[in-house]
Amino acid sequence: RRIAVDPAAFVQQGRKIVAIGRNYAEHIKELSNDAPKEPMFFLKPTTSYLPSGGNVEIPRGVAAHFEVELGLVVGRTGRDITQAEADSHIAGYALAVDMTARNMQDVVKKKGHPWSAVKGFDTFTPISTYIPKSAVSDPDNLQLTLKVNGVTKQDGNTNQMIFKIPRMVEHISSIMTLESGDLVLTGTPSGVGPLVPGDHVTCTLADATGTQLAALEFRAVQREGGYSFQP
Amino acid sequence: RRIAVDPAAFVQQGRKIVAIGRNYAEHIKELSNDAPKEPMFFLKPTTSYLPSGGNVEIPRGVAAHFEVELGLVVGRTGRDITQAEADSHIAGYALAVDMTARNMQDVVKKKGHPWSAVKGFDTFTPISTYIPKSAVSDPDNLQLTLKVNGVTKQDGNTNQMIFKIPRMVEHISSIMTLESGDLVLTGTPSGVGPLVPGDHVTCTLADATGTQLAALEFRAVQREGGYSFQP
Ligand SMILES: [Mg+2]
Ligand SMILES: [Mg+2]
Ligand SMILES: [Mg+2]
Repeated sequence: RRIAVDPAAFVQQGRKIVAIGRNYAEHIKELSNDAPKEPMFFLKPTTSYLPSGGNVEIPRGVAAHFEVELGLVVGRTGRDITQAEADSHIAGYALAVDMTARNMQDVVKKKGHPWSAVKGFDTFTPISTYIPKSAVSDPDNLQLTLKVNGVTKQDGNTNQMIFKIPRMVEHISSIMTLESGDLVLTGTPSGVGPLVPGDHVTCTLADATGTQLAALEFRAVQREGGYSFQP
Repeated sequence: RRIAVDPAAFVQQGRKIVAIGRNYAEHIKELSNDAPKEPMFFLKPTTSYLPSGGNVEIPRGVAAHFEVELGLVVGRTGRDITQAEADSHIAGYALAVDMTARNMQDVVKKKGHPWSAVKGFDTFTPISTYIPKSAVSDPDNLQLTLKVNGVTKQDGNTNQMIFKIPRMVEHISSIMTLESGDLVLTGTPSGVGPLVPGDHVTCTLADATGTQLAALEFRAVQREGGYSFQP
């Protein structure tokens, strides 16, 4: 019924991005949020993908914050996936940044409005190349770093995640089918902050032995035209 | 870069569903919401599509409400689409129901959480077959009806929409690129309400001359397994 998707081409062919929020205790504290009882997630459109080397466009009036995250690339479509089966549905990984219009998010959270625009601007999901699962021995012990203009802002480890990968896959797929080519973003460690035009961002993903698995870099620029946020 | 999508096959090949909320004054009143200053939208995953004749699965603990809506099928990819250009990006239409987990939505609105789960369950977007644009002379004057077990619950006209189609396309595409195969849901008129297992739903879309352009029917059943909502 649907066109088969090659997980390695998830950026071009994938249909959805499911992003977990509030999955690192220190990040929950820095935004003064409550810790969720179950994984909390939102959707980002695949039109927000930005391959490494591109420009993140900051819309007028928007305070755009970076959030470096580990991404899971779904390889096998499934629904009601158990925690025991979760790993068999993951084909690989990616390093991603979940760009967020923070000042808009503050407003929609107060009003009880959806997050889709806040998280869904074009270029708001910088993404590395595909990392096949064979390259990753332990996804629960990966170091994520993000630097702005050479200064380290985020430096966290996936061993700090509140909900582990099998629980995230179980939860999401109990609500919506996860399809081959979908990306799951697993939440960000602490240290998030704003980008301004001209900023250069570099991110790395490394395993416990220090082997670098992925790199990602982009520049922030002012969005020409488009939406203008007026609070 | 991306695989071309045939608009007539948007259900199988499309990548996103962008749904406008609060676009009919009487519906805003019935839910005691505030009228938005600009179009408000959220994303639904394409895994929520349910072709006519299928079963909407109501998750455990969920009060699932129907919302009948006109859908726009994007035929030509665009960004920063002007109101004058909007029509040239629309290939056709569809009749849809935006199923909503209303009791979950009440909770996430209070907490300022995302709407993605509330709107994104599997089977939560019943959808008609594709209606080519050539069949529709005036999309701003179409009658939408929804009956539950033969009793009319919704009977509205797209001439009551607060934000017209060109304004919706302009707004969404100023934030996220609209791609060929995307569906835009345009909001629901008043009369929304819950479904219980066993309910049979029938919807129609007709033009001002009374010509029926689309029909859609489905049955509500209890979801086996999956997510269970506990407020
Ligand atoms: Mg995030
Ligand atoms: Mg949302
Ligand atoms: Mg709706």
